[in-house]
Amino acid sequence: MKLSVIKIGGHVIDDQDALLVFLKSFVKVEGRKILVHGGGKVATEMAARLGVASEMIEGRRVTSPAMRDVAVMVYAGLVNKRIVAALQSLGCNAVGLSGADGMAVEAHRRNPAPIDYGEVGDVDRVNVSLLDTLLQAGITPVMCAITCDGAGNLLNTNADTIAMEAAKACSGGYFTRLIYCFEKNGVLRDVNDDSSVITNINSESYNGLKACGVVSAGMLPKIENALKALSESDISEVVIRNYNNLHVDSGTVISR
Amino acid sequence: MKLSVIKIGGHVIDDQDALLVFLKSFVKVEGRKILVHGGGKVATEMAARLGVASEMIEGRRVTSPAMRDVAVMVYAGLVNKRIVAALQSLGCNAVGLSGADGMAVEAHRRNPAPIDYGEVGDVDRVNVSLLDTLLQAGITPVMCAITCDGAGNLLNTNADTIAMEAAKACSGGYFTRLIYCFEKNGVLRDVNDDSSVITNINSESYNGLKACGVVSAGMLPKIENALKALSESDISEVVIRNYNNLHVDSGTVISR
Repeated sequence: MKLSVIKIGGHVIDDQDALLVFLKSFVKVEGRKILVHGGGKVATEMAARLGVASEMIEGRRVTSPAMRDVAVMVYAGLVNKRIVAALQSLGCNAVGLSGADGMAVEAHRRNPAPIDYGEVGDVDRVNVSLLDTLLQAGITPVMCAITCDGAGNLLNTNADTIAMEAAKACSGGYFTRLIYCFEKNGVLRDVNDDSSVITNINSESYNGLKACGVVSAGMLPKIENALKALSESDISEVVIRNYNNLHVDSGTVISR
Repeated sequence: MKLSVIKIGGHVIDDQDALLVFLKSFVKVEGRKILVHGGGKVATEMAARLGVASEMIEGRRVTSPAMRDVAVMVYAGLVNKRIVAALQSLGCNAVGLSGADGMAVEAHRRNPAPIDYGEVGDVDRVNVSLLDTLLQAGITPVMCAITCDGAGNLLNTNADTIAMEAAKACSGGYFTRLIYCFEKNGVLRDVNDDSSVITNINSESYNGLKACGVVSAGMLPKIENALKALSESDISEVVIRNYNNLHVDSGTVISR
């Protein structure tokens, strides 16, 4: 059975028109699927309006309890429910999940040494059985970037990480693709040329691309994480694709 | 199969200690169960902090789009996920639901004539099949007071109504009890005497109690709604009970 785990980032979520374009493309993706979304600027704006300060320590953002509450409100509340409501209107039977719901994503508070990042969770376990129950019932899980430690604490977690961990966890029972959607057509040879998509990358070709300085600095960790996930799990491929063309074979396919 | 639909109101949600007492009692309730929660003062406080004004027309609260967004953030986000995380820590496998999730509660925007209440939903349908899928998987649904119109719009709905509609909808397939939890021991003959609980009310005895002026004005609509729900569905009984003693037979039982 095929499964697509699809991650959509903040820029698309911040733009209502772009979000609708993405969601219309999302509902056309065939087979079982899971959507993982980030939070976009809404959380930052909401924090500013509420007078909740962003703390930075050594250039790293620290999540205070007040900031975590804003994240829970915005990610698990406003953004998640807007996406779920929109998907329902498009005929996709979506159910929103935070990590606490059915312990979909169990995490532990990150070790406070050497830097205390605050209310940030590192993922321990994705509840595949819960996701399976929903998928088998024809439901599309929509996961936000909030995790839970099992002791009643909600934690903030990177949405890319949640998508990766969900795909890894599901790859045992499903033929699993992980698709990262963003505003570009894929990994580009020339960032100014949208048609210069590198269609295939594997660990061998990656070393060559990296050595030649072809791939932009921002893409390097994404590709390295993808290659790591491929080596650690049965994920069949990781795809980097334009959000407006999600349902069509396109973008950069990263494989073993 | 027995099912308890349990509604908890705002005052308990506003008090973290009381909420924990309630949740510890909730997890002891045997059999399948659904929790429906209100929002408490958090939404009002959040709206004030965000500068979102409460509109009143002819003494009725009107839900502006901005206020609805606050309700979605607080009810479906912060309050719902705090309750779900706490239940998970107590060993109860809870999943939070807004009306949009799996179209758990479909509603339509209330007719704007004669008074336009704004983003307020009147319930059309509770998705029993979804609740069944979750209950059969050993999951306890935790429903907040946000509904969805199927066209992508989130709406604000009274939590008492959601509990009532969920119980009515489930009463076809389950032996369903609806329990309203609050700070009193039940319907009291003397509001100053906690031991003066009226243990049983039916439509006949209610008329007598009402005629004698025994029941407090605030309780009249609750009892009348309960009697109406009993006459319209197969709900076996409606119980009004203290939140700290939920798992013990107690309070006022309203039956046909």
